[in-house]
Amino acid sequence: MSEFRVSATQLASFIATAMSALGLPKKDAQTIAELMAEADMQGSDGHGVIRLAPYAKRILAGGLNLQPHIRVVQERTAMALVDGDNGMGHLVMKQATELAIQKAKSSGIAWVGSRLSNHAGPASLYARMALKHDMIGLYFAVGNANHLPPWGGLDMLLSTNPIAAAIPSLNEAPIVLDMATTVAAYGKVKAKAQRGEMMPEGWMIDRQGKPLLDPTKSEEGFLLPIGGYKGYGLSLVVGILAGTLNGAAMGSQVIDFNKDFSTTTNTGQAIAVIDPAAFGDITEFKQNVDRLVRELREAQRMPGVDRIWLPGEQSHLRRIDHQKHGVLLAPSLVKQLNDLASQLQIDAISPL
Amino acid sequence: MSEFRVSATQLASFIATAMSALGLPKKDAQTIAELMAEADMQGSDGHGVIRLAPYAKRILAGGLNLQPHIRVVQERTAMALVDGDNGMGHLVMKQATELAIQKAKSSGIAWVGSRLSNHAGPASLYARMALKHDMIGLYFAVGNANHLPPWGGLDMLLSTNPIAAAIPSLNEAPIVLDMATTVAAYGKVKAKAQRGEMMPEGWMIDRQGKPLLDPTKSEEGFLLPIGGYKGYGLSLVVGILAGTLNGAAMGSQVIDFNKDFSTTTNTGQAIAVIDPAAFGDITEFKQNVDRLVRELREAQRMPGVDRIWLPGEQSHLRRIDHQKHGVLLAPSLVKQLNDLASQLQIDAISPL
Repeated sequence: MSEFRVSATQLASFIATAMSALGLPKKDAQTIAELMAEADMQGSDGHGVIRLAPYAKRILAGGLNLQPHIRVVQERTAMALVDGDNGMGHLVMKQATELAIQKAKSSGIAWVGSRLSNHAGPASLYARMALKHDMIGLYFAVGNANHLPPWGGLDMLLSTNPIAAAIPSLNEAPIVLDMATTVAAYGKVKAKAQRGEMMPEGWMIDRQGKPLLDPTKSEEGFLLPIGGYKGYGLSLVVGILAGTLNGAAMGSQVIDFNKDFSTTTNTGQAIAVIDPAAFGDITEFKQNVDRLVRELREAQRMPGVDRIWLPGEQSHLRRIDHQKHGVLLAPSLVKQLNDLASQLQIDAISPL
Repeated sequence: MSEFRVSATQLASFIATAMSALGLPKKDAQTIAELMAEADMQGSDGHGVIRLAPYAKRILAGGLNLQPHIRVVQERTAMALVDGDNGMGHLVMKQATELAIQKAKSSGIAWVGSRLSNHAGPASLYARMALKHDMIGLYFAVGNANHLPPWGGLDMLLSTNPIAAAIPSLNEAPIVLDMATTVAAYGKVKAKAQRGEMMPEGWMIDRQGKPLLDPTKSEEGFLLPIGGYKGYGLSLVVGILAGTLNGAAMGSQVIDFNKDFSTTTNTGQAIAVIDPAAFGDITEFKQNVDRLVRELREAQRMPGVDRIWLPGEQSHLRRIDHQKHGVLLAPSLVKQLNDLASQLQIDAISPL
């Protein structure tokens, strides 16, 4: 099989058709498809179209509400709590983020949490929505599977609970941080196993606390949080802000979405939007971000380091490259998508 | 010299007298003294009375404004920007935090940033102020000395930029996270050097990127961020939120307060306060936090682990212990304080 590349439009069109065939209203299918394609465009390939088959499996198992009544259930000037009614997370968090942006315009900052939401793709997707309004976006989520015990413990009660931040700039690429609070995301472990490679020390430990290097034995150990006990604390705080505060699942309540396809996940997320224009001149702020970016990029480098990257810069370049040349899909993924297409009686995905 | 223990009242009284003698108005001296003593009470001994001598040095060098006009210079419903007029950071951030709490009561969330502030003690001090209002506090600051290069770089353009979070609970101790975005804080390196011990791998690297283990050679290397490039990103984002956004120093603008005692530091900090009562029933929220705390504490433990700790739990126990038995001051610190007392012609610090 030769290289299989697709444009964002082709990708979104395929996903939208599949989602419609699965029973989602056309408009919602389109919204989800565009966000999922955007994830692949920026290189967040663990959170884009690769998730279509698991989403389909959950929909077919009755684990998702296809006609959710997504609504604000609590509200104050600068905050809201959105009940996702077990709809697709993309729909819930897009609505939540748009509300946060609107509120931040008058309040200077706004925070919108979600409950009864679901997996919504990469964290940066929502933080980045603030950028086109010249605003800062911060995103927090409870991960959909627990792979992390409390520090010193064996029971996996915490997830990789990610943090994303998007900061507007003037002429430079915006700063976009999107990180799990564990050293490696679980998807990276799976990828190592598929390639038959060993993991570096520091990714996982076994039940005795010793380094676990064989990714095929990942079920026998745990992910390590960043900075040891600090990452444990960070994962916990993110989980409380995105989950507990919203009445969403946290700790032992978290449903492993890789194993259970029918139980409501009650996923919690949170988006905060800050308007830098409330703090002073917006152009001056963006110029200062540019100055900082250049200062960091132009720092003296360690031997063997070709370039100093800013958070989000590689995704930015990937997005530009993918817009020109399309996104490369792995043969196994193309097969999976086309198997789904047959099952749903829709057209196979077509390459560029 | 026998053990030297002091009560919080004795400590605060000594600090207040010193601060008055240094020229601060009585009320301000008292406010600062209480916050500094509180730092020692909770075991943040790197950020309490140990800082009195450096603060005095800065005041005597003309590097601090003793009669600052601390004021709100930008404001919207849910945010404010406070200009500290180069006053003591404790005064600036106490005022900023009180304003954030007041605003959060109506808005649900509020964010107050500072510029022209100064070192304000441990990050958790301000996050914790939200607790007695049954609110969540989040604190971010630009550190007052750069010890961290961008990932792959050699120029130290970033600081240990700390994050603190305080979350109220019902019957359990509140969750209080207070962490630098580097694996080790710089104070820990200095402590290793004083004790003649080597550092563990992972704290610092040298200019070739190799592990640096000898703390007496710390000037030849850099602190490592938590989770490698992730901690670099986190330090940068915290610095932008607490510094750049407020028009405060960031990157190469940061003054090393250990070396330069007269230049205005233009320190930036930020406090966010969230009112859980805006999201639902406050008691239910606090019960859910308790449930989570117990679940984590009661998790199965790794061999050799006696207890699983929650963030802030050890500080909580230390505070209780110090209230009973006083705070232990090292002989070198007592000498330093009494040298300052002679210099200022005030009474020496007296033990319990």
